[in-house]
Amino acid sequence: MAHEFDLIRTFFQPLSQVATQDVGIGDDGAVLSCPPRQQLVVVTDTMVEGVHFPLETAPEDIGWKALAVNLSDLAAMAAKPAFFSLALSLPESKNHQAWLKAFSSGLRDLAEHHQVPLIGGDTTRSDRLTVTVTAHGWVPEGQALLRSGARPGDGLYVSGYIGDGALGLMVVNEALDAEAYAGALQKLNRPEPRVALGALLADLASSAIDVSDGLLADIAHLLEASQCGCELDVATVPYSQIMQGYLAQNAQAWALPLTGGDDYELCFTVPAEKEALLKERIQPLNLPITEIGRITAGTGVVLKNAPKGVQTLEHLGFQHF
Amino acid sequence: MAHEFDLIRTFFQPLSQVATQDVGIGDDGAVLSCPPRQQLVVVTDTMVEGVHFPLETAPEDIGWKALAVNLSDLAAMAAKPAFFSLALSLPESKNHQAWLKAFSSGLRDLAEHHQVPLIGGDTTRSDRLTVTVTAHGWVPEGQALLRSGARPGDGLYVSGYIGDGALGLMVVNEALDAEAYAGALQKLNRPEPRVALGALLADLASSAIDVSDGLLADIAHLLEASQCGCELDVATVPYSQIMQGYLAQNAQAWALPLTGGDDYELCFTVPAEKEALLKERIQPLNLPITEIGRITAGTGVVLKNAPKGVQTLEHLGFQHF
Repeated sequence: MAHEFDLIRTFFQPLSQVATQDVGIGDDGAVLSCPPRQQLVVVTDTMVEGVHFPLETAPEDIGWKALAVNLSDLAAMAAKPAFFSLALSLPESKNHQAWLKAFSSGLRDLAEHHQVPLIGGDTTRSDRLTVTVTAHGWVPEGQALLRSGARPGDGLYVSGYIGDGALGLMVVNEALDAEAYAGALQKLNRPEPRVALGALLADLASSAIDVSDGLLADIAHLLEASQCGCELDVATVPYSQIMQGYLAQNAQAWALPLTGGDDYELCFTVPAEKEALLKERIQPLNLPITEIGRITAGTGVVLKNAPKGVQTLEHLGFQHF
Repeated sequence: MAHEFDLIRTFFQPLSQVATQDVGIGDDGAVLSCPPRQQLVVVTDTMVEGVHFPLETAPEDIGWKALAVNLSDLAAMAAKPAFFSLALSLPESKNHQAWLKAFSSGLRDLAEHHQVPLIGGDTTRSDRLTVTVTAHGWVPEGQALLRSGARPGDGLYVSGYIGDGALGLMVVNEALDAEAYAGALQKLNRPEPRVALGALLADLASSAIDVSDGLLADIAHLLEASQCGCELDVATVPYSQIMQGYLAQNAQAWALPLTGGDDYELCFTVPAEKEALLKERIQPLNLPITEIGRITAGTGVVLKNAPKGVQTLEHLGFQHF
């Protein structure tokens, strides 16, 4: 294995620009100053090759995605991304300049876009590539968006388009035409965490979650935390043109976008009296925001307008949450 | 695999007691309040089975050690441990109640002792057990101990006894008499992070590092960061009775405790004018603190009283730092 300290210096040190009163990579730990009247939000996501992304994934995309899925969690809590650490367990086959250069460049693309420095971590040997990012953000005291705040009557919204990540995964696994489905592959490999939307929702939304396990699963998590139910109008779930085209030819796959993962969109609830303000505020984001249902006093998800008379998640094979 | 959410609830939720205004496990991330006029210290260490600990290691000890090595890094920066996250990549063979119960109980032993809650993380499948802990601590603004503060004339000190972890590893690898070397195995598997000492050094020491890679290697890291040299009197390095007994019978192994890892003691420098105060303050700790050398204006480590005329690290096979 190339010497750990050399790797860190060459590829990761350039990502580590912290404020002058702070300490980044190179000591036993990092030292970070805390802005006044803010709370710290901490999120951790691990990606294992072959489990969380296909073996064929380009190193640039692994680097991007490892940070993106964490920034998506921060966005769901309305936190402003601040800094992150990286634990990289690297098989011998990837421990070379070309792989590390590509991985770190994808990571840097997203880190620089959101101005989040890498503040430390650990590099180890392993049989299987495993990337754990712990990302940190700041949120004004008491303003973190939780899963537990939804109340009956709130509107249920989702950002962007749902299902393209799952479609992208199918394109890889079933070796479909990559060019025809380029948009879905882009969504799978380079998800755009909805950081600006999350910040904007802090004083508007009553609850939020990022859609990573699949829309229906994540809605179920949110409802369980909020102890509510919802009516979800399947006909209103927003699909990209590429997904619409796929479903037009594969009607039997109608549940794929609802149950597949890797969306990294935000799903959130807004009290009725704030829904007009929401529509106003989201204009500058240039991101579709779609109302897909309404919170009820019941339990679980009641599906409206689903094919074949499907009305509950149990019909789709969901077990307990 | 047992359902991730069930595992988390059963074994890890009990470790997650945070303040009432904060949010622990169960949302997209944790939300933590920041004490006024403190900086945040963040450390990350990954342990891979077969690389960072022997395959035979008991799950209780893996749990303890994964947190201990991180608290040791916090101690080296004079930070008070506050909370930690856990990324656990688990092979199928360990994904059962007995293993998880044992692992989490060892983790809990140490977490409760230092009152650090588990605030989140991720559980994934993998071929090889990989445990990444990211630990967080607080330090008064500007008081973090760095590696870079040593100055010529400072005394060089080390806590506890050196080399028992390396001896413990040899006992496992060479199947020596475990009972005769129980103390060394205890040090290997259940290191005690020097948290109280670290806090006490904040306004006394000029630099510090935790001894994890081996005493000489870590001193070299400290000297490189401080751009100094040191004279190290090998005859003064403190050894436990068990190590003294081993060296009495294996004189050729004299460099083992100096180059072996897994000590998790603190190595630090103290300006001459504060050395009397140091001796006073450490009394209540009930932990041996030994002066082993002095910082010089040179570069690298000059060894005094080493066997066979060895005077530099290069003689011991060290390459660059």
